[in-house]
Amino acid sequence: MAPTKNGRLLYNAIPDGYPQPGKHVIYDDSETIDLDNVPLNGGILFKILVLSIDPYLRNRMRDPSVRGFMPPFVVGTPLQNGGVAQVVRSEDPTYAAGTYVSGSFLFQEYVVANASDVSGLRPVQTKGKLTLSAHTGVAGMPGATAYTGWKEYAKPKAGEVVFVTAGAGCVGATVIQLAKADGLKVIGSAGSDDKVEYMKSVGADVVFNYKKTKVADVLQKEGPIDIYWDNVGGDSLDAALVNCNKHARFIECGMISVYNGGETYQMKNLNYIYQFEIQLHGFIVLTLVPKYPEFFTEFADRVASGEIKYNEDVTIGLENGGAALEAIQRGKNTGKSLIAVADY
Amino acid sequence: MAPTKNGRLLYNAIPDGYPQPGKHVIYDDSETIDLDNVPLNGGILFKILVLSIDPYLRNRMRDPSVRGFMPPFVVGTPLQNGGVAQVVRSEDPTYAAGTYVSGSFLFQEYVVANASDVSGLRPVQTKGKLTLSAHTGVAGMPGATAYTGWKEYAKPKAGEVVFVTAGAGCVGATVIQLAKADGLKVIGSAGSDDKVEYMKSVGADVVFNYKKTKVADVLQKEGPIDIYWDNVGGDSLDAALVNCNKHARFIECGMISVYNGGETYQMKNLNYIYQFEIQLHGFIVLTLVPKYPEFFTEFADRVASGEIKYNEDVTIGLENGGAALEAIQRGKNTGKSLIAVADY
Repeated sequence: MAPTKNGRLLYNAIPDGYPQPGKHVIYDDSETIDLDNVPLNGGILFKILVLSIDPYLRNRMRDPSVRGFMPPFVVGTPLQNGGVAQVVRSEDPTYAAGTYVSGSFLFQEYVVANASDVSGLRPVQTKGKLTLSAHTGVAGMPGATAYTGWKEYAKPKAGEVVFVTAGAGCVGATVIQLAKADGLKVIGSAGSDDKVEYMKSVGADVVFNYKKTKVADVLQKEGPIDIYWDNVGGDSLDAALVNCNKHARFIECGMISVYNGGETYQMKNLNYIYQFEIQLHGFIVLTLVPKYPEFFTEFADRVASGEIKYNEDVTIGLENGGAALEAIQRGKNTGKSLIAVADY
Repeated sequence: MAPTKNGRLLYNAIPDGYPQPGKHVIYDDSETIDLDNVPLNGGILFKILVLSIDPYLRNRMRDPSVRGFMPPFVVGTPLQNGGVAQVVRSEDPTYAAGTYVSGSFLFQEYVVANASDVSGLRPVQTKGKLTLSAHTGVAGMPGATAYTGWKEYAKPKAGEVVFVTAGAGCVGATVIQLAKADGLKVIGSAGSDDKVEYMKSVGADVVFNYKKTKVADVLQKEGPIDIYWDNVGGDSLDAALVNCNKHARFIECGMISVYNGGETYQMKNLNYIYQFEIQLHGFIVLTLVPKYPEFFTEFADRVASGEIKYNEDVTIGLENGGAALEAIQRGKNTGKSLIAVADY
């Protein structure tokens, strides 16, 4: 068989603001791969079907001198993130040809690797509404972020009030549904009217567009809150600090408002942390996942049954991945952002 | 017996910056009390000996429309805080005349009250280095703040590194000693060279004057830290966030940098809360004290034996209390700030 094109999405330059396709991220189709004969050395040849685009990826596009929770990407090499692939050929008895798997993959059409070098590698299956792509979203890392962070830190009591930011994103929308299942009043914020509608559709009680309505006004009227799910930081966090009850739990999941440069928001209410005896819990999903194995079984079943809802924003083709990467930083995606690298 | 002067320190106006004696706080000696005949109605006549001046008092001098953890003071009425008194006369069998007590008292020379109306009222005694005044400091609320906050949230492991701000204050200096007893490396900051020396004398390993040396530089060299004891907020908190290890514990005790108006510090590193999985624990001593009753016994014994060191900055006379209140906000006190209302 003739060599096959093996397109790659490369990290090309460190952005100081939003990452721009063609500048900070470039598509390269100069490489080829011989699918029949490429040596596997005991490993596996993966055909990448879906790659996930997540807000945190911007963190890995930083100057290597800046501290961070994951290693910075290396300029000139492919990006990397969670995805779903199919095993094309295998010399590893655990993963037979044809198997569908999820794991952390380089942004390429095909990858050759040993199983031990693919972080989080595990077989996946589909049933009901649990599609292959769901394993990069609600049934994958972002869903696990919502599930494990909520289980570990929310300590919800029925009737309490939670404020969920970026509530139309995969993490936020999952948190909204977990909170409703626990009997809470849910306030959700997002940055477009479509997203506001989506939050409503998954069960949020009070929804608003933070570009039109001040967060502090909503929380003053609908709060005080007991739990704050932070995906954004900035003025949402500041408003939450002064509009919460004593012993509020703040689940610090992300702060997209500061990922893409510019001035940080000038916080005025940090002194309420001690006044209201607030507990702020920073967390990374990889730390918590081993504690909650039922995410991959019981929770996946709730997705498959349709009880847990989700939506997707699919970008076709790795060559368009750079645009998807910029869009998620600008909040232009609606639903879990994915790249369909191949038909699946 | 002729009526006796009953001087009072009154809250006179809401400050927008530092509280100024004669303006926001005034001394009033127009009232008298008949010590022999004032009706007690089943209560107690207290002679106030010592009153505590603490940073948090500034919070109670706020506009009543602003939320806060304790009720705002009422303009025209006396200030109130922890103190030590002697029972002059009593109709309450629990507190006989002559008994020394601590509790939360109005800023007056004499107070008539029922025991149930004096928050935290309890008999105190002195032995060894545990003086009467120590019950407003290291053996009282500030000491309990250090002790209970440390016990509840520090989770120290020998060899870890802790950064203690306002380390020459009563809370900070006590934390330094607790941390050393737990086998930690202690970094302490304060705002004068005298205070830096004092932190060294109670055992801190690395000490610096934050007005001369950048916090971030010290933490970069001597960190990363595992525990941050926050009395100040602002740039100290911001530097701690980026110079800590994963799973660091931040004990949020106070933020004097924002108590007296002015611009808040523009935080740049809040996004490390989730990246480094930091746990920030806001707390109020009154909530934790019931959980740690040994503070009033075992810990008090450690003070009495001289194992736990402390120092005091005593202001003589209630009429000078306003100056002491301003001084502590400006960090001009050296040691636990007290008003000696009468000889003790």
